[in-house]
Amino acid sequence: MRSINEDTITQAVIAAMAACDNPRLLTLMTSLVQHLHSFAREVALSEVEWEQAIGFLTEVGHITDDKRQEFILLSDTLGLSTLVTAQNNAKPCACTESTVFGPFFVEGAPELALGADIANGACGEPCFVSGQVRGLDGQPVANALIDVWQSDEEGHYDVQSPAPDGEHEHRARARLRTDDEGYFHFRSILAVPYPIPHDGPVGRMLEALGRHPWRPAHLHFMIVAPGYERLITHVFRNGCAYLDSDAVFGVRSTLVADWVRHDPGLAPDGTRSPVPFYTLRYDFVLNTAGAVEMHA
Amino acid sequence: MRSINEDTITQAVIAAMAACDNPRLLTLMTSLVQHLHSFAREVALSEVEWEQAIGFLTEVGHITDDKRQEFILLSDTLGLSTLVTAQNNAKPCACTESTVFGPFFVEGAPELALGADIANGACGEPCFVSGQVRGLDGQPVANALIDVWQSDEEGHYDVQSPAPDGEHEHRARARLRTDDEGYFHFRSILAVPYPIPHDGPVGRMLEALGRHPWRPAHLHFMIVAPGYERLITHVFRNGCAYLDSDAVFGVRSTLVADWVRHDPGLAPDGTRSPVPFYTLRYDFVLNTAGAVEMHA
Repeated sequence: MRSINEDTITQAVIAAMAACDNPRLLTLMTSLVQHLHSFAREVALSEVEWEQAIGFLTEVGHITDDKRQEFILLSDTLGLSTLVTAQNNAKPCACTESTVFGPFFVEGAPELALGADIANGACGEPCFVSGQVRGLDGQPVANALIDVWQSDEEGHYDVQSPAPDGEHEHRARARLRTDDEGYFHFRSILAVPYPIPHDGPVGRMLEALGRHPWRPAHLHFMIVAPGYERLITHVFRNGCAYLDSDAVFGVRSTLVADWVRHDPGLAPDGTRSPVPFYTLRYDFVLNTAGAVEMHA
Repeated sequence: MRSINEDTITQAVIAAMAACDNPRLLTLMTSLVQHLHSFAREVALSEVEWEQAIGFLTEVGHITDDKRQEFILLSDTLGLSTLVTAQNNAKPCACTESTVFGPFFVEGAPELALGADIANGACGEPCFVSGQVRGLDGQPVANALIDVWQSDEEGHYDVQSPAPDGEHEHRARARLRTDDEGYFHFRSILAVPYPIPHDGPVGRMLEALGRHPWRPAHLHFMIVAPGYERLITHVFRNGCAYLDSDAVFGVRSTLVADWVRHDPGLAPDGTRSPVPFYTLRYDFVLNTAGAVEMHA
C-alpha cells in the first residue's frame, strides 16, 4: 500500500475488500473496480476528463429529485437498462417481451373500474385500449393488476407537470384489474412520440454524441398476478417515428402494435365521439412464476 | 433497433453515436459503454441490484454540495483517482511524486507571508514546516506558489465546519511563495489521521466492504511555478497509523517524512513554545514543464 502505481492500484483496491463478508457484493465490486480501471487505462483518461466526469455526475445528482430521475435516464440512454432488463427476463418466446421500466412510474396510482377514462384531463386524441391477459397455456388470467401510464399529447407525464397546489394528480395513469376472462379495457389518449427530458446533463450528453432524445409513441404496462412473473413492458405504436432510433433502446418488434384511427362516430364505450378516435387491441402473455428460465 | 437483446444492445448503443463529431468523446463513450455492459454481463447484474445502484448514485448526488464532494470520495475510495493521477503524472524518478487531489481543496486561499501561522485558530499541536522547492537540475525555484491545506486535530478541514455566519473562514489553509532561494516556511498544526466523511453513501459502502474510512496523517500541497509542471501531492507523517491502509490509496513511500517532536522551548520562529511542538522539513522537486514523459 506504500508503493501503489498505475499498474498496482487495481489489485490494491481489491485486496482492501478482503474482509467483506458479503460474497455477492464482493463479486460486484471486484468486477466494477476492474472494469472502471480498465476503462480509465484503455482511454488513458486525463485529469481534466476525470474532472469533467465528476462535474457531469454531480449535475446528474443535483437535477434528480422525486419527480425526475436523471440517473435512470443516463442508464437508459447508455443501454444499461435494456441490457439488465433483457438478461433478467429471458422467457419462452410465446411470452410478451419485457422492456425498460423508464423513470416515470409512480407507486400507488388510483385503481379505476374497467372502462374508465384514465386520461383524467390529460390532453390528447381519444384512444380506447383493450386486450386480454393470458398465461403460457392460453388460459385467461383473472384479476391481474395492470399499471398503465403514458404521456399526454405534448409528451409530458403527469409527474412532469404537477398540479398548481403541488399535489400530485394522476393523469393518463391508473391501475386496473382484469375481469374473470382476463380482459381489460379503458379509455385514454393517443400515445405520441416525445423527447426524454433533455434540458439537463443527459440531454447535453446526447447532443454532444450526435444523438436525438426522442422516443417512439408507446404505452407503459406493468402486470402482476399470483403465479406469474411480473411483466414490465411497453406497447409501441406502429408507423410512428423513432421506432428505429429510440433514445433508450426500448423497442422490440413483438411489442409494436397498430393503433387504428376511426372517424367521428360510435366509440367502443357506446358513446358517440364527435372527433376522430383511435383503438388499440393488445394481448399480454405472462410467464409462469418460478419457471426455469429459457432463452427465447 | 427493433430486435435488440442482451447480445446486441452494446453494438446498438455504439452505432447510435455514429454522428458524433468529437472523436475523443466518441472514444471515451465507446469504451465506457463497452466496459459498463461487460460489467453488467460478467456479474449478471439483477434488476434489484440495478435499482440499488441507481439509489446509491442518487444519494451520492444529493449529499454532494459546494462543501462536500461525495463523487470524488467515491472515485478516491475505488482507486480511480489514484489511477488517473498516476497515469497522468509519470515523470523522472528524481521528481516528487504526485498523489490524489482529494475533495477539500479551496480556490483562492489567502496568500500569507513566509513564516505565518496558517492555522488561523484551527486546533492542534504546533508544527513548524519548512523546505525548498527545486527543479530537476537542483536549482531553487523562486517565487513558486504553494497551496497548503490540512485538517485540524479533530480531523476536520475548515470547509467541513463553516463559521457561524455562514462565511467561509480559511483555517489550516493558505498560499505562500518561495523566497529567492526557493525556500518556504510556515507555522501550522500537527497533522493527524482522520476518517474521510463516512456518514453518507460512500461511508456505508466502505462499511459493507469491510473497509475503514481512515487516512494517515498528511499535509496537502499544490505547487505551481512557470516553466514547471504543476505538482499536486501530500506529505505523510512517518510512524502514523493507516500508512498501509489509506482509504483513498494515496500513500507513496517517497512522500513519507518524519515529523520531529520537540519538548517545550525555543521554536524555529524564535519564540519560546510553552508546549511541545513538531517540525517537518520536506523538499519538493518539480518536473520541467513540457518535458517528454518518462516512466519512473
